[in-house]
Amino acid sequence: MTATDLEQRLRAIGAARYHDKHPFHTLLHGGGCSPDQVRAWVINRYYYQSRIPMKDAAFLSRCDDPALRRRWRSRIEDHDGTDTSEGGLERWLRLADAVGLDRAYVASTRGVLPATRFAVDAYVRYVRDMPFLQAVAASLTELFAPAIHANRIAGLFEHYDFADQRSMSYFQHRLTEAPKDVAFGLAWVLANADTPEKADMACDALVFKTDVLWAQLDALSAAYVDPGRIPPGAWQPGEGLA
Amino acid sequence: MTATDLEQRLRAIGAARYHDKHPFHTLLHGGGCSPDQVRAWVINRYYYQSRIPMKDAAFLSRCDDPALRRRWRSRIEDHDGTDTSEGGLERWLRLADAVGLDRAYVASTRGVLPATRFAVDAYVRYVRDMPFLQAVAASLTELFAPAIHANRIAGLFEHYDFADQRSMSYFQHRLTEAPKDVAFGLAWVLANADTPEKADMACDALVFKTDVLWAQLDALSAAYVDPGRIPPGAWQPGEGLA
Repeated sequence: MTATDLEQRLRAIGAARYHDKHPFHTLLHGGGCSPDQVRAWVINRYYYQSRIPMKDAAFLSRCDDPALRRRWRSRIEDHDGTDTSEGGLERWLRLADAVGLDRAYVASTRGVLPATRFAVDAYVRYVRDMPFLQAVAASLTELFAPAIHANRIAGLFEHYDFADQRSMSYFQHRLTEAPKDVAFGLAWVLANADTPEKADMACDALVFKTDVLWAQLDALSAAYVDPGRIPPGAWQPGEGLA
Repeated sequence: MTATDLEQRLRAIGAARYHDKHPFHTLLHGGGCSPDQVRAWVINRYYYQSRIPMKDAAFLSRCDDPALRRRWRSRIEDHDGTDTSEGGLERWLRLADAVGLDRAYVASTRGVLPATRFAVDAYVRYVRDMPFLQAVAASLTELFAPAIHANRIAGLFEHYDFADQRSMSYFQHRLTEAPKDVAFGLAWVLANADTPEKADMACDALVFKTDVLWAQLDALSAAYVDPGRIPPGAWQPGEGLA
């Protein structure tokens, strides 16, 4: 088992299970979503975005290597911002503005599907509680993110009036942020998963993370697309508008 | 705000949000489920059952009142069994036998929907981590369980060949176990939620728990009923048969 073998296994997991295969993304990127379906996606995906810096803080809280912490810390800055950059959460709220949502409603995370919370919270806890190698390996879905972001940018610009440089800036930034993070994360996993057992653990972590992403789209689809049954207490079209 | 007011609020939450309102149960109890849909329910619901004693152990692990621990401990015995009673998990596996599943497959929890795991694990962690009052109050969905169990027993006996005294014994036992537990739990919550803030916390806990139950049925329905899209890695009809 070489590092190359492990990298191939990890990439095969993405090819089979990453959420770019989910029909909701086909619908979204192809222009098939109604304004309310786009809003439901923006509201629920915000919950995931909002927990990413908390996940990365949980990671830092258990990392005893200053060099690794320094390297990882930029993930928090990418989402929460710095003195000179507004950060991904602010950019996502600009997308919320553009689709007609009240950004305070979106930021409150009221109306988020319970299933979205359960999946995302499971990810934060995974990174906090599981073996350190797996906390790193779970982040490797970023290997597959630039392709979906590029498709999304092209599809949204083509099909939706709300898409402009301002509302799409979250995705534009992720095109450069994600590869930087994942190149480091992949190299770290390949260097540290140096037994067959550890390689299996790394693969399991990536499978877990693809489940987290897939489950969010399944819940979104069931609630707002097909069969379109909104669970008690979740966002109803018409709520939370600007 | 009196104890009677709080009890009315708790019962209203059940009336609005308990999973007896979910269309999957209408389908199941009315005889509309295919054998594979029943199997998917048995497989996924087993995961919930299997985590209940772990949830109750988490509760005991933070309870510093010996009298309350003694009282609560019977919940673990009800599921895991004693020298003289086989317990609820064994009874559930008998149901698995009756619907043609390999009980070792079911007990392995392989093939369980990721969304089921996320929801159920969220419940175990809630009871471990949240304020103690809420750990108790989350159990109060048992207030509404005897009615659904009685409907289920009647519906399954009427519509499905696998239903007999042996396969239905899990539900028969819950008819007497759940009321015993919940009478105590309700009295405890009503006595201890003695401020408006605590009453709100108890209601929030019950809302959370109804979300946990509802999300499981939403995931089951989306995967195996409508639209019937099975997530990567989850049970496929034909797998795990006896």
